[in-house]
Amino acid sequence: MYELLGNKWHEECGVYGVFAHDEDVSALTYLGLYALQHRGQESAGIAVTDGAWMDVTRGMGLVNEVFRHQVPHMDNQYIAIGHVRYSTTGSSLLQNTQPLIVNYSGGKISLAHNGNLTNAMEIRKKLEDDGTIFQTSIDTEVILNLIARSRKETVEERLADSLNQVKGAYCITLMTENKLIGARDPQGFRPLCLGKLENGWVLSSESCGLDVIGAEFVRDIEPGEMVIIDDSGIKSVHFAPKQQLASCIFEYIYFARPDSVIDGQSVHDARFMMGRILARESKFKGDIVISVPDSGTTAATGYAYEAGIPFVEGLMKNRYIGRTFIQPTQKKRDTAVQLKLNAIRSVVEGKSVIMVDDSIVRGTTSGKIVKMLRNAGAKEVHMCVSSPPIGFPCYYGIDTSVRKELIAAKKSVEEIRQYIEADSLHFLSIEGLKESLTAVNPNNMCYACFNSDYPVEQGKQPEGSGKYVFEQRKC
Amino acid sequence: MYELLGNKWHEECGVYGVFAHDEDVSALTYLGLYALQHRGQESAGIAVTDGAWMDVTRGMGLVNEVFRHQVPHMDNQYIAIGHVRYSTTGSSLLQNTQPLIVNYSGGKISLAHNGNLTNAMEIRKKLEDDGTIFQTSIDTEVILNLIARSRKETVEERLADSLNQVKGAYCITLMTENKLIGARDPQGFRPLCLGKLENGWVLSSESCGLDVIGAEFVRDIEPGEMVIIDDSGIKSVHFAPKQQLASCIFEYIYFARPDSVIDGQSVHDARFMMGRILARESKFKGDIVISVPDSGTTAATGYAYEAGIPFVEGLMKNRYIGRTFIQPTQKKRDTAVQLKLNAIRSVVEGKSVIMVDDSIVRGTTSGKIVKMLRNAGAKEVHMCVSSPPIGFPCYYGIDTSVRKELIAAKKSVEEIRQYIEADSLHFLSIEGLKESLTAVNPNNMCYACFNSDYPVEQGKQPEGSGKYVFEQRKC
Amino acid sequence: MYELLGNKWHEECGVYGVFAHDEDVSALTYLGLYALQHRGQESAGIAVTDGAWMDVTRGMGLVNEVFRHQVPHMDNQYIAIGHVRYSTTGSSLLQNTQPLIVNYSGGKISLAHNGNLTNAMEIRKKLEDDGTIFQTSIDTEVILNLIARSRKETVEERLADSLNQVKGAYCITLMTENKLIGARDPQGFRPLCLGKLENGWVLSSESCGLDVIGAEFVRDIEPGEMVIIDDSGIKSVHFAPKQQLASCIFEYIYFARPDSVIDGQSVHDARFMMGRILARESKFKGDIVISVPDSGTTAATGYAYEAGIPFVEGLMKNRYIGRTFIQPTQKKRDTAVQLKLNAIRSVVEGKSVIMVDDSIVRGTTSGKIVKMLRNAGAKEVHMCVSSPPIGFPCYYGIDTSVRKELIAAKKSVEEIRQYIEADSLHFLSIEGLKESLTAVNPNNMCYACFNSDYPVEQGKQPEGSGKYVFEQRKC
Amino acid sequence: MYELLGNKWHEECGVYGVFAHDEDVSALTYLGLYALQHRGQESAGIAVTDGAWMDVTRGMGLVNEVFRHQVPHMDNQYIAIGHVRYSTTGSSLLQNTQPLIVNYSGGKISLAHNGNLTNAMEIRKKLEDDGTIFQTSIDTEVILNLIARSRKETVEERLADSLNQVKGAYCITLMTENKLIGARDPQGFRPLCLGKLENGWVLSSESCGLDVIGAEFVRDIEPGEMVIIDDSGIKSVHFAPKQQLASCIFEYIYFARPDSVIDGQSVHDARFMMGRILARESKFKGDIVISVPDSGTTAATGYAYEAGIPFVEGLMKNRYIGRTFIQPTQKKRDTAVQLKLNAIRSVVEGKSVIMVDDSIVRGTTSGKIVKMLRNAGAKEVHMCVSSPPIGFPCYYGIDTSVRKELIAAKKSVEEIRQYIEADSLHFLSIEGLKESLTAVNPNNMCYACFNSDYPVEQGKQPEGSGKYVFEQRKC
Ligand SMILES: Nc1ncnc2c1ncn2[C@@H]1O[C@H](COP(=O)(O)OP(=O)(O)O)[C@@H](O)[C@H]1O
Ligand SMILES: Nc1ncnc2c1ncn2[C@@H]1O[C@H](COP(=O)(O)OP(=O)(O)O)[C@@H](O)[C@H]1O
Ligand SMILES: Nc1ncnc2c1ncn2[C@@H]1O[C@H](COP(=O)(O)OP(=O)(O)O)[C@@H](O)[C@H]1O
Ligand SMILES: Nc1ncnc2c1ncn2[C@@H]1O[C@H](COP(=O)(O)OP(=O)(O)O)[C@@H](O)[C@H]1O
Ligand code: SF4
Ligand code: SF4
Ligand code: SF4
Ligand code: SF4
Ligand SMILES: [Mg+2]
Ligand SMILES: [Mg+2]
Ligand SMILES: [Mg+2]
Ligand SMILES: [Mg+2]
Repeated sequence: MYELLGNKWHEECGVYGVFAHDEDVSALTYLGLYALQHRGQESAGIAVTDGAWMDVTRGMGLVNEVFRHQVPHMDNQYIAIGHVRYSTTGSSLLQNTQPLIVNYSGGKISLAHNGNLTNAMEIRKKLEDDGTIFQTSIDTEVILNLIARSRKETVEERLADSLNQVKGAYCITLMTENKLIGARDPQGFRPLCLGKLENGWVLSSESCGLDVIGAEFVRDIEPGEMVIIDDSGIKSVHFAPKQQLASCIFEYIYFARPDSVIDGQSVHDARFMMGRILARESKFKGDIVISVPDSGTTAATGYAYEAGIPFVEGLMKNRYIGRTFIQPTQKKRDTAVQLKLNAIRSVVEGKSVIMVDDSIVRGTTSGKIVKMLRNAGAKEVHMCVSSPPIGFPCYYGIDTSVRKELIAAKKSVEEIRQYIEADSLHFLSIEGLKESLTAVNPNNMCYACFNSDYPVEQGKQPEGSGKYVFEQRKC
Repeated sequence: MYELLGNKWHEECGVYGVFAHDEDVSALTYLGLYALQHRGQESAGIAVTDGAWMDVTRGMGLVNEVFRHQVPHMDNQYIAIGHVRYSTTGSSLLQNTQPLIVNYSGGKISLAHNGNLTNAMEIRKKLEDDGTIFQTSIDTEVILNLIARSRKETVEERLADSLNQVKGAYCITLMTENKLIGARDPQGFRPLCLGKLENGWVLSSESCGLDVIGAEFVRDIEPGEMVIIDDSGIKSVHFAPKQQLASCIFEYIYFARPDSVIDGQSVHDARFMMGRILARESKFKGDIVISVPDSGTTAATGYAYEAGIPFVEGLMKNRYIGRTFIQPTQKKRDTAVQLKLNAIRSVVEGKSVIMVDDSIVRGTTSGKIVKMLRNAGAKEVHMCVSSPPIGFPCYYGIDTSVRKELIAAKKSVEEIRQYIEADSLHFLSIEGLKESLTAVNPNNMCYACFNSDYPVEQGKQPEGSGKYVFEQRKC
Repeated sequence: MYELLGNKWHEECGVYGVFAHDEDVSALTYLGLYALQHRGQESAGIAVTDGAWMDVTRGMGLVNEVFRHQVPHMDNQYIAIGHVRYSTTGSSLLQNTQPLIVNYSGGKISLAHNGNLTNAMEIRKKLEDDGTIFQTSIDTEVILNLIARSRKETVEERLADSLNQVKGAYCITLMTENKLIGARDPQGFRPLCLGKLENGWVLSSESCGLDVIGAEFVRDIEPGEMVIIDDSGIKSVHFAPKQQLASCIFEYIYFARPDSVIDGQSVHDARFMMGRILARESKFKGDIVISVPDSGTTAATGYAYEAGIPFVEGLMKNRYIGRTFIQPTQKKRDTAVQLKLNAIRSVVEGKSVIMVDDSIVRGTTSGKIVKMLRNAGAKEVHMCVSSPPIGFPCYYGIDTSVRKELIAAKKSVEEIRQYIEADSLHFLSIEGLKESLTAVNPNNMCYACFNSDYPVEQGKQPEGSGKYVFEQRKC
Repeated sequence: MYELLGNKWHEECGVYGVFAHDEDVSALTYLGLYALQHRGQESAGIAVTDGAWMDVTRGMGLVNEVFRHQVPHMDNQYIAIGHVRYSTTGSSLLQNTQPLIVNYSGGKISLAHNGNLTNAMEIRKKLEDDGTIFQTSIDTEVILNLIARSRKETVEERLADSLNQVKGAYCITLMTENKLIGARDPQGFRPLCLGKLENGWVLSSESCGLDVIGAEFVRDIEPGEMVIIDDSGIKSVHFAPKQQLASCIFEYIYFARPDSVIDGQSVHDARFMMGRILARESKFKGDIVISVPDSGTTAATGYAYEAGIPFVEGLMKNRYIGRTFIQPTQKKRDTAVQLKLNAIRSVVEGKSVIMVDDSIVRGTTSGKIVKMLRNAGAKEVHMCVSSPPIGFPCYYGIDTSVRKELIAAKKSVEEIRQYIEADSLHFLSIEGLKESLTAVNPNNMCYACFNSDYPVEQGKQPEGSGKYVFEQRKC
């Protein structure tokens, strides 16, 4: 088996929640997860309650594989939460799938979590010293134990108690037998928004998860806010003191779907603007602008618009490629990229091509694509990247390669250009990136993987251990 | 779907463990579970360790279904434990399969458990009040939490601490990164024995699990004993004060495999003797002795031997019948029994038949078999049961019907005879049952389901709730 | 993977058919196949018609695996046929499963076939020379092509035409859109019987297939007879001239279920009688009679009866063993037999044991069982086989080993005894075998695998090629 | 379950073939099928030969589902053929998957077929009258029977014989034990091209299937040509007299991948040109050009280029949507389209939008998309379709709806515009379509579904029966 996606950063999770009487809440959650599938393709789960019991289905695979035969369903179900998750092969264990369901003194809780707690290891150690057992390697279990140990009475107070002990990035949807709760970390790393159904409420990592079920977008959950939904309506609590905001800029660059709006900023518009500013910065002149589909397309159309150069399809993407395939012969090293992308000779032949992609992680794929274009007859290949060089790992829920795998951690732009054998190479500047945000304050963002300005003191993470602190990855 | 086995008591679990360098310990565990399959057909699991990591595969189904493609395997693996489990449809959830693996302050533990703790609910409530969360509905999780909370240092002391807090029936195999531990409750309800490999040790619920891998039987684990196996050898600890023994007599009557020897008593010999004494007690005269296969066969051969009446096959059992099948037509009510058993007309026609079975739970199956024999031409059907009437539920690890489903709880022997439409009916007396044990002290046994003499004060179990104290069954 | 059953002859197929308005005919066929499962465990299939369309489900595996989720079903279905099949790994291809459904000039036909045509290769060659293509390697396709090429008008005439061209052994159930037809070869090698439902008819390889659905046994289909069932009732045609009958004696010895009655002779009674005569012939004196379960049991009870020696269980069979399992260590060569059978020490220790089995093919299993008994303490092991030595292959539907694998083809009885290390060894004589048939004429039987008296001139079968004439096995 | 793709015409099949010593030919075929996956998502199959034996794996589902665990493989394999197929639920039977493998007098043949024979029913009837049986409902079986019945000697002569009897559209890859043959019908309806490996040859429905394995494009197979590849090299035969060419224009409009080149014409360039001419014809003025992804994108970029209006992404497509999903609530009728596509409000709000798609079949999806854009704030929606109105069914291998489902068969352009509620609607003219072909002769094309000029006299096809002549669809 050969891993096709080893070259990219991966969003780790998407969370979802529905509270609605007289709706098929688990089916709505299933549709919501479909829309959030890009946030995690390794496992999926849905938990439901009818006010007394909870049921859950979790499994490895895509949403339509896990729920191929049926979505969990209870008569009179009215709350459901869901989760999709990315994870690397080594740790993609069934027992690490979410949502978890637990019993504690206050009843039942089910929890889905997106993000990464930077002090999870510390807390876990303390809890273990205190006699707690852990059955998974996911942060979620830490949060649940803190809830159970809280001396507070209501579940929302207990949750606040719990969240005030953890540090890092998280968005969660939590369900008891009669409440749906959503919460977002005080710095707002990951997105979470609220939608309204005719007679109910929805929580979703991205607004595209509301659109898919026809829910009306209400607003984003604020950093440090918790919303509690039950039969008496919706309530908002700020569980943590104000802090410097640090929303992940990479959501706008790559992770989120272009049709989502996060904190008031359209992802599409940000990307389109990145492309425009890239054109202004790079000043490349070429015959055509092409994208590395799909993630490069929005910025490419922006680039073409700004530069007044036609946008055309120079690379075709095979939409049926799954995450893995059986590697045929040792001879053909480039099969993985060739299987995914194909250059269109008649488009690029003899042309000076401006190729736009969102980011460069290790650089190997970009190099292969440049070569593919040259083989198809491109005269010149100028690569434009709609983000700055990634020089530092992420500790907030992204499965980053260890630092030494990041090409920009070791090489200058010119060295990278040589490595990928492009005629020119331009990365969007941090200033340009900030400028591309027109509807959100660019200073409320995290840019740490570009400038190492980590917004939260992240403890003593041993280099490269970010992902496997409990022997498994977290989400 | 139609449940074929709804008429019987079911053994709830089998446990297994192997410690051996230079052996494929997980494959040996797989073979051991094959031999213990009769103790649980609903789920199976194997956990292994190589001294540093632990891996587990668990799933619903028979051993050869769960491990159809592969048995968990690590290079340098040298300890493995395994579990098979019976459970009713409602609660046969994947998350309730064993062995569990947890992390606690002392490292990793994997645990497999057979039995039923009568005070699990109480302890669990106390633990929950103290901030503990529970992710399954199995007693195993209670034991693991008590281990983690113990102030003792070694895992064996912690386990002793834990077991001294629980009441009821249990046999466990437990594994850390470098130890294999077996323990049996102080009253010895369930069996557990120790075997020796050339360079290693084996723990098995029944001795047939040793035979299958060619391990030499060493001895039974004593009630209240714990054996600890590691690289320094084997150590025995008595973790609890001596108590009145109460080994489950039903293991000899029905649960265990006839080729197993428990506490020095051959199961086959006990059953054969039950048949002989049954013949002496009943004094039935007939032309032939037949059994209800397979569970009635050993006693039937004993009956035939004692009575000097030929043993012949009057009923043929379809060996391919799984637990469930698709019910064809509403018209044919008796399909389930007919699918499983068929009378041989040429054998029973015109004959006075003595039919031997091991026990009667609800009586419906026996009634159908009697009718089947009459339809096949039997002149007379005299039923002999190699156990006394079951009048009371079991709280020690057996999935008993609630009391009101037990036919002997409501009807006299004569009423049962009329209900099953037999010409005569005889149940083995408790005295006869005791007499059938030739190699073990009959006074060290539990007979509670026959005489309500429960050996452990079992708390205030609400009638009928034995099985679902945590919403799910235990093992 | 390790093949557990490599040591036995295997019946190749079972066929079934139901014609009944107002019955769930496909579900009844499913139950029938359950009862015939012992005739083939490798694949199963059911075809149904509602008078216009035909539907079929076929698959590899046991009946309850192939139909795990559902049995084929049509509204208004009223005819169904079914098939179970044994085959070795190499040729167990999905495309060789039955029933086949084809279109021909007369409409649709579905056919299930048990047996082996000795001139199939010849006919197939002729048909191929004439421009016919073959998509499977089963004889069934030859019969269907002959039907389609017949100049006759009705399907029954065409079938007669077809069957008059083939030689060898066959029992078939055939269905058109409005007829159910059963046919048996003129020498009657394989069994086929007719049963009656309240408002319909049933065809089954063995009578146990009638019992399971509560159908009344009517009679056996006669050799050379064809019965045609449609809305106008049932019709019988003798499609072939009288020939010397040659029913397979091995059906009585091993293949058929003991509760079946074939051509008026109870299989149980024949086996019981074989055991009795064996006792008379062998005159062995021992302490106990045990059987090699399950196939040896009936004869063993007969032996015990005749000899006046107690029948007891000395070997326990693991009922959960499937056809294959993962072989653990190279060290343990005997695992396969040990996994399947276990000796009961307390029964055999110090005893002179008379062990009864039905037949010896290669002798390796028998040798291991003798050794197992000795290891369990048996003083003497006297083996009694309820059939004569098998010295010759079968060409009539049995998956025989090539001749050189048959131990009796190369060794004398004394040599075999030495090979299996028994104290004595006795095979039933052919005369004794004939004498055991009390209800059927012993001269109407095939004994060719014992005496090479092949009842049909079987063409020039190259030695050892019997099984793979079309590269795949036939049924 | 709800069918997501019910609104489109579907290409029915893709075929592939590799002949190469020292290459993993079945793995290469697997990669080729991946690239041809868009031509059929319902089933896939690969057959291989090592010169003596043939093996095949076929199954329902996508290429990576059917070959999830393994691709068929033989030591010394050197020829392989493959097939992907689309089919509607009703007839997506396992037995109709390809490639077929048959035995005939000349040996073994495996065949994969793309297209539709317009006289298959006639020939089949004649063959049936002549005694032939049919086991599938696919045209492939007719071709194979004609090969087997040919009096010619070599397989290529027999194939020529066979193909000269059939009418209609076909491209086939055929393999014997030592030859790989490709053939294309005399009118050239479907594409088939030839590629070269270092030491071998490849046949593929589209050139993208060569690119993926790094094979060099050699040329297209000519209409009426057959190429025969064996150890002596490659040979070309024209098996049929020259006829008026009639390549399917829909391959360029929609079916083929944009990165393929068919008969010298780049599919991308044709589509881009369709978009440009569409712009010239429609003269719509708007703020932005958007596409209905993915099929509308190439023409949309051409439109934007010609009109000088920016191309932007106004609709986001969920790439994870499989063919079916579980329909949630009855309330939400538009879920299917909403799940697949989402409008980007910030892009379309307040804008006059020119929306480009490739074709309109039933019009329901287009109507929903127009509505989606209006809900997202679009001021005006002008729809441009890069093909003429489809008024007539196809008989050449396309799964067309019956004529009455084609909206253009019943409604004028203005009526369609009203039905989909667009502000304007323009279809590309046939002249414009012809003009868009710059590298191939536009008069050598079939336009029958637009103008009913059927290039082959297609027999008396009863209306609507095109798809189910043998009760199942053909390919
Ligand atoms: N592998 C591929 N890469 C890119 N485009 C493809 C691929 N396969 C098919 N296509 C194109 O996708 C189009 C169909 O996609 P789309 O419009 O999304 O679906 P629909 O069938 O609903 O119209 C076709 O035009 C086809 O040419
Ligand atoms: N459903 C059944 N019930 C009882 N006996 C059966 C059944 N099916 C087959 N048999 C008998 O079981 C015998 C084969 O069983 P066994 O000896 O256990 O396996 P084998 O000899 O094939 O290893 C045959 O004699 C057959 O008649
Ligand atoms: N592997 C085995 N081999 C032989 N007997 C077994 C085996 N496993 C379980 N048994 C015995 O089978 C009996 C249960 O079989 P049976 O009577 O056929 O089913 P039930 O009574 O549960 O319907 C038990 O007495 C058990 O001791
Ligand atoms: N459902 C979707 N529709 C359209 N674009 C999506 C969807 N989901 C994710 N994306 C975008 O696709 C991009 C990733 O796609 P792509 O570039 O093809 O893969 P890769 O991860 O190899 O870069 C991300 O930018 C993401 O925003
Ligand atoms: S470090 Fe980078 S990826 Fe991580 S949260 Fe900050 S901006 Fe996002
Ligand atoms: S109550 Fe009965 S089944 Fe339970 S342990 Fe006691 S004897 Fe065994
Ligand atoms: S040769 Fe033997 S197995 Fe074959 S039909 Fe004759 S008796 Fe039966
Ligand atoms: S009718 Fe249309 S779809 Fe069919 S072959 Fe002709 S152009 Fe292609
Ligand atoms: Mg990308
Ligand atoms: Mg029983
Ligand atoms: Mg046997
Ligand atoms: Mg489209």
